[in-house]
Amino acid sequence: MKEERGSAWDRVWVGANLATMQPGTDPYGTRLDAAIAVRGEAIAWIGASVDAARIAAQDGVPVHDASGRWITPGLIDCHTHLVYGGNRVAEFERRLRGESYEDIARTGGGIQSTVRATRAASHGELYAGAARRAARLMAEGVTTIEIKSGYGLDGATERRLLEVARSLGRELPVSIRTTYLGLHALPEEFAADRRAYVEAASGPWLDAIVGAGLADAADAFCDSIGFTVGETEGYLGAARRAGLAVRVHAGQLCDIGAAELAARCGALSADHLEYLSVAGVSALAEAGTVAVLLPCAYFMLHQQDPPPVAALRQAGVPIAVATDCNPGTAPCTSILIALAMACTLFGLRPEEALQGATVNAARALGLAGDRGTLEVGKRADFALWEIDRPAELCYGLGANPCVGVVYGGRERAAV
Amino acid sequence: MKEERGSAWDRVWVGANLATMQPGTDPYGTRLDAAIAVRGEAIAWIGASVDAARIAAQDGVPVHDASGRWITPGLIDCHTHLVYGGNRVAEFERRLRGESYEDIARTGGGIQSTVRATRAASHGELYAGAARRAARLMAEGVTTIEIKSGYGLDGATERRLLEVARSLGRELPVSIRTTYLGLHALPEEFAADRRAYVEAASGPWLDAIVGAGLADAADAFCDSIGFTVGETEGYLGAARRAGLAVRVHAGQLCDIGAAELAARCGALSADHLEYLSVAGVSALAEAGTVAVLLPCAYFMLHQQDPPPVAALRQAGVPIAVATDCNPGTAPCTSILIALAMACTLFGLRPEEALQGATVNAARALGLAGDRGTLEVGKRADFALWEIDRPAELCYGLGANPCVGVVYGGRERAAV
Repeated sequence: MKEERGSAWDRVWVGANLATMQPGTDPYGTRLDAAIAVRGEAIAWIGASVDAARIAAQDGVPVHDASGRWITPGLIDCHTHLVYGGNRVAEFERRLRGESYEDIARTGGGIQSTVRATRAASHGELYAGAARRAARLMAEGVTTIEIKSGYGLDGATERRLLEVARSLGRELPVSIRTTYLGLHALPEEFAADRRAYVEAASGPWLDAIVGAGLADAADAFCDSIGFTVGETEGYLGAARRAGLAVRVHAGQLCDIGAAELAARCGALSADHLEYLSVAGVSALAEAGTVAVLLPCAYFMLHQQDPPPVAALRQAGVPIAVATDCNPGTAPCTSILIALAMACTLFGLRPEEALQGATVNAARALGLAGDRGTLEVGKRADFALWEIDRPAELCYGLGANPCVGVVYGGRERAAV
Repeated sequence: MKEERGSAWDRVWVGANLATMQPGTDPYGTRLDAAIAVRGEAIAWIGASVDAARIAAQDGVPVHDASGRWITPGLIDCHTHLVYGGNRVAEFERRLRGESYEDIARTGGGIQSTVRATRAASHGELYAGAARRAARLMAEGVTTIEIKSGYGLDGATERRLLEVARSLGRELPVSIRTTYLGLHALPEEFAADRRAYVEAASGPWLDAIVGAGLADAADAFCDSIGFTVGETEGYLGAARRAGLAVRVHAGQLCDIGAAELAARCGALSADHLEYLSVAGVSALAEAGTVAVLLPCAYFMLHQQDPPPVAALRQAGVPIAVATDCNPGTAPCTSILIALAMACTLFGLRPEEALQGATVNAARALGLAGDRGTLEVGKRADFALWEIDRPAELCYGLGANPCVGVVYGGRERAAV
């Protein structure tokens, strides 16, 4: 076999237990005492450790000894709002002192306070905060992060958020995928004319962002306090015509048919889904749309009704899990906490949670052909873990057993 | 003032914002742009940064510039089961696949599996696992950890667990307080004779542990599946006569009057308290017993009824918060996650949560005179944080803004 010539390898990790996350005899795609070789940015070979050691010795390939550690695909956080100004700690304190969301919003709190802080922040300030949060995710083996705009709510600031996200992708070893979240909330200056806002977000702002190559996808918050199905449908249609993939925030606060809309639009994913009908589940299954679950927001909002995991599982809807990192409802920079919460709060099995941050998260980003499993030809993004079994990644609260991260074939310090 | 002579200081931190946690004008005992000087293991002086800088320059005292960071008292995790063998990941997987607790217990799972793994583990193995967990807590500014026995359930192994805990205190910079949890569960070999077990735990095992100076306190799990009020009362009486402080696991699964028992015995704390009557609240308030809340176990067990925080607050019961770190119901090595969960799940205000891991946690360990606040004469245990306001310590999930930890006057690497 051509791949078994070490001269085609740049380096190889031996003595590892692999959770390849490929479908197979067990849900983790386990290969014990295995090796993984890379060439350039891709995985060149996967096989038995003993064979790899022999080939590497023959051909002088640099060898890393994984010493019995586990290797998983690099984790993928497929839904974040990582770039924003300010924070919402003061609001968190006020809520816990008994003030209502309404009172807080009336006095300038809530999402509009983040919009004000974000508009006032420079590129450098936005970059610094987001880079700090990205470093925390990377320290837990995250190699791909999706970042949405949505705290600008005007053309220039939405664009600036996506520019910051693109800068992170250039400066850091982690891969960044960007999403234009034009329909996130209605800014105060458009309160009297929502139609004008939707038209601007779906028209000139979208065109400028696409023209500058700043977005990989478009997203909208289609919910009771967000945008209607009609508004969202027009916006997503424009995004698709402009060449973007689309995704939808659906069913976080109530079910207005956003999941069905996502399926109808061929969305890569529908995200949140605490409120989802039987018809919505079927629509997602038929369309092959990924259900992205966001347990940290559910936790922070103290919600009581989890997404219908059993129905999603039975219908064969691919399930992903993400942090939803944002300053208001999910100040979470730990994908491992998201996995633990997905198991404990939503009843996901550990293998489903881990699929949710690897193979299915890749699918939610339209990257299933390129990453999310350990497979020859895929991007050589992977993480090394000091654990006895993969389920440990979903079990501890506060432990970070990540001991190494490889981005595109090269091990790099996470922070 | 004698304290204002720099010659009485070993070193001083200037340019800090202090959350002294002393009662005062605000709930954090805030002092902005302040300084803290140490001599030996104690706090020698607290005052304005500008005065400290002048005094230090005059007298040649080494100065650390805190650069606007916040300093809190070292955090205190006042309820852990840090020393154990094995883990319970496989059981976590089985539960999520739908197996019942009863099925798992019948096939050797549950606490008895940890007892078997603990009995089979060497001192070195137990030490290594506990030291790894202690390091995670220390990295988040924890300077005092309480550690319970309770996974031995025989005289020799209970003793070994406490010896491991004492070793941690000698080898690591963190302070360790040990608790003999003789009545944790009934081991299999005593299943037919619980009276004999209680007599052994309350008699010869207790005496040997006290004789060897291995325990600072005694604790019991007084609940439906634990031990009765009568059994617990006899055991705690023996512990008190032997000179130990006492504490009680009370009201985790149901209310059998364990809180009232704790108050009656003059216990330092009653811990868990999801099930607690009005009479129980009053009894704790009158006795001055600390209510130790353990939100991570509540989270993992998916419980729905939180402790009666409003009633505890109104009655003036001091409230502490701890990780409950253990392999079954709280695989948590993050005091910051415990604080966040205390706020979000139990409705504690951030200042109450932080009091719960400082001043009130010290009280739960009988150490209120020695630590838990930043105050002249107290032990110089403190943590430095990269935050804008103290509530941030209860807000993020996965962020660790701790940038330095001082144990007894000396800054030491946490890990």
